[in-house]
Amino acid sequence: MPLDPARTVAELRELRELTSDENGAQRVAWTETWEGARRWLAGKLEETGAREETDEAGNQWFTLPGRSDRALLIGGHIDSVPNGGWLDGALNVMAGVEVLRRIAEEGDPQVTVRLVNWADEEGARFGRSLFGSSAAAGSMADQVELRKLRDADGVSLPDAVGAYGVDLDRALDARRQLENAAVYLELHIEQGPVLESMGLPLGVVLGTFGVERSRFTFRGQAAHAGSTPMDQRRDALAGAAKLELEIREIAKRTGDGAVCTMGGVVTKPGIVTSVVETAECLLDQRHLDAAKLAEMLSNAQAASRRFAEEENVEVEWERIWSIEPILFDEALIELADESVREVAGTSHRLPSGPLHDAAEVSRAGVPTVMLFVQSLRGLSHTKVEDTKPEHLELSVRALDALATKTIARLAAGG
Amino acid sequence: MPLDPARTVAELRELRELTSDENGAQRVAWTETWEGARRWLAGKLEETGAREETDEAGNQWFTLPGRSDRALLIGGHIDSVPNGGWLDGALNVMAGVEVLRRIAEEGDPQVTVRLVNWADEEGARFGRSLFGSSAAAGSMADQVELRKLRDADGVSLPDAVGAYGVDLDRALDARRQLENAAVYLELHIEQGPVLESMGLPLGVVLGTFGVERSRFTFRGQAAHAGSTPMDQRRDALAGAAKLELEIREIAKRTGDGAVCTMGGVVTKPGIVTSVVETAECLLDQRHLDAAKLAEMLSNAQAASRRFAEEENVEVEWERIWSIEPILFDEALIELADESVREVAGTSHRLPSGPLHDAAEVSRAGVPTVMLFVQSLRGLSHTKVEDTKPEHLELSVRALDALATKTIARLAAGG
Repeated sequence: MPLDPARTVAELRELRELTSDENGAQRVAWTETWEGARRWLAGKLEETGAREETDEAGNQWFTLPGRSDRALLIGGHIDSVPNGGWLDGALNVMAGVEVLRRIAEEGDPQVTVRLVNWADEEGARFGRSLFGSSAAAGSMADQVELRKLRDADGVSLPDAVGAYGVDLDRALDARRQLENAAVYLELHIEQGPVLESMGLPLGVVLGTFGVERSRFTFRGQAAHAGSTPMDQRRDALAGAAKLELEIREIAKRTGDGAVCTMGGVVTKPGIVTSVVETAECLLDQRHLDAAKLAEMLSNAQAASRRFAEEENVEVEWERIWSIEPILFDEALIELADESVREVAGTSHRLPSGPLHDAAEVSRAGVPTVMLFVQSLRGLSHTKVEDTKPEHLELSVRALDALATKTIARLAAGG
Repeated sequence: MPLDPARTVAELRELRELTSDENGAQRVAWTETWEGARRWLAGKLEETGAREETDEAGNQWFTLPGRSDRALLIGGHIDSVPNGGWLDGALNVMAGVEVLRRIAEEGDPQVTVRLVNWADEEGARFGRSLFGSSAAAGSMADQVELRKLRDADGVSLPDAVGAYGVDLDRALDARRQLENAAVYLELHIEQGPVLESMGLPLGVVLGTFGVERSRFTFRGQAAHAGSTPMDQRRDALAGAAKLELEIREIAKRTGDGAVCTMGGVVTKPGIVTSVVETAECLLDQRHLDAAKLAEMLSNAQAASRRFAEEENVEVEWERIWSIEPILFDEALIELADESVREVAGTSHRLPSGPLHDAAEVSRAGVPTVMLFVQSLRGLSHTKVEDTKPEHLELSVRALDALATKTIARLAAGG
């Protein structure tokens, strides 16, 4: 069976029919719709003879044994957010199915080839993303917190995953799955506007951004909007406003794809007749370079202190969450670039803003690279998420070419 | 009985004991605590022989008939916000009690002297302030809306006022109370920091600010904080931040006490991982000069359009509420200035940011002036609202001096 990228597009549409409603995809992990998608996936792979196995963290593996135990892994996730799109996660899985079919058809591969459908990449039900891949990577260090998580209906995470055969106490045993992993490849929609704005179908991902999430709280003094002269105010919102404008300058000065976002401000008392007493600002900063990320945070902190002084208010800083940048494998980036150029003529290297399972696998020490395919209008996590069919087909071809090159290099001892 | 300002302070403390709990004053209009305060007030005035009368809008009048029907009115309001202070409204009433005692003691005044305790100045229960004074002034034009108002427990305004003898259909009949009104005087705590910052106990109020309340809504595009390059964003919060900083410049450029306040911003989706799609800003602008107020609003609108263009977002403007400036009587301002200088050495003229019943009476064509006494830290509508006892006493003396001067002028045909 030669590679048939059009079939991937058709199968993605079939999956959409099976698992979406009028609001979009509903393949939320640890639900019957998700389980149905996993069964459907297993059916698609039956003819390849790949051995199916579900590990202790709920990850679904399909293995084509090769002449060597060293394994090429291709990964994705069939789970979606509620009211999600048809491609986020599922594209990677279905492109992997097509590559496995092509390899199986050609007989015993030189190395073992495995497709993994990671469990609960989105974390939509319990707010904890990368569940399965972090277990396999051995980085799931928050099991105490995981035990406390409950969904909107009050069901605990241990009960929900237990219903699908996962015992949280044993989830980290999934680590053995990466023992022979030599390379990990993942294809994903970009979920951003960069490739579309450059008119390119495909790109190679350099790594995932490090992220610093903070809460900056400015505290001034509530005061009557009518009776308090302008020069006697301690307006917390003024500090927040200056910081919102400054973080854009910080990102610009830092460059290399730096992004800084004030995603929300909460003002209290928040009424038209009072000067703002507290303004809580949510700040998200990302960079591929750890030192530059740290500098961006430190610049935002220094600016916030300067603005607090100018406005005679106070400011407190609190880290909400952070993750270091994860850089993909340089040799694999070169191979991926070659593959993209072969199928699309031009390649482009770009960082990934969102996290992916690939980041967990890379953190575990497995040489990793990702391919991005253009997203229309950069939209994702919505039913209007889309990519042109011809670009989807090109992405399957690029993943296949990259798999071929990788197997050859592994076979040659690389 | 000579004027005894210390008694006013003692009576204000007595009222506080009777009508406050650990959270502050609870004399909310149309409640039993308020009614109890009104009965207590009537008791205090009994010995003066003043005739008590409650009008169709629930305003409580105490009249000392004089040799002329032309009347000097002294007004205040005994109602408070929930968890309010001991002085806002009550000071005016109790200072008026002391002035009436002094005048009654001296026998038949040259003109009629009336103390009015306005009903529901605060509008705390139904969100509609200046209830009684707007009825008496004939400016209560919103009776259709008033009928629909309900408190937090679902009780309608007509039912609540009905329980205290007010028939909304007849409330405007209270207009007859102003028929013979020749002058209206009101003393109030400043509720702002101006007098305290100048080290002055007393001031004369020029009028109440005109107010323009607006909602400016900036609309951009929600986009992933990690995958959207800085130069491809349409960040609604950036427009809001620029406007917050610009309104301060507008107020500064306009001068003459101009104030502009962005009291709140609501950001949507308001999450750390997304560029802000909509930012709704509440804007309050005040000035004593109608033309300057209009210019401030127009400058804010123009600035918001400029910022929207710079940020590639949209902006919509909506008026929430507005009122024209109300200027007090020039001759009375002079008399008030003299009175303040007599009792405190120095006077200061200032506008009032908050509205007061005096604004309604002035709008009805009655020559009006107000006195302000210093507020500590400018705080009001809270249990920590306070004024030094010696300043309270000075304020009673100033009101009394002003009443004396006013009566003399009225008697002389002024």
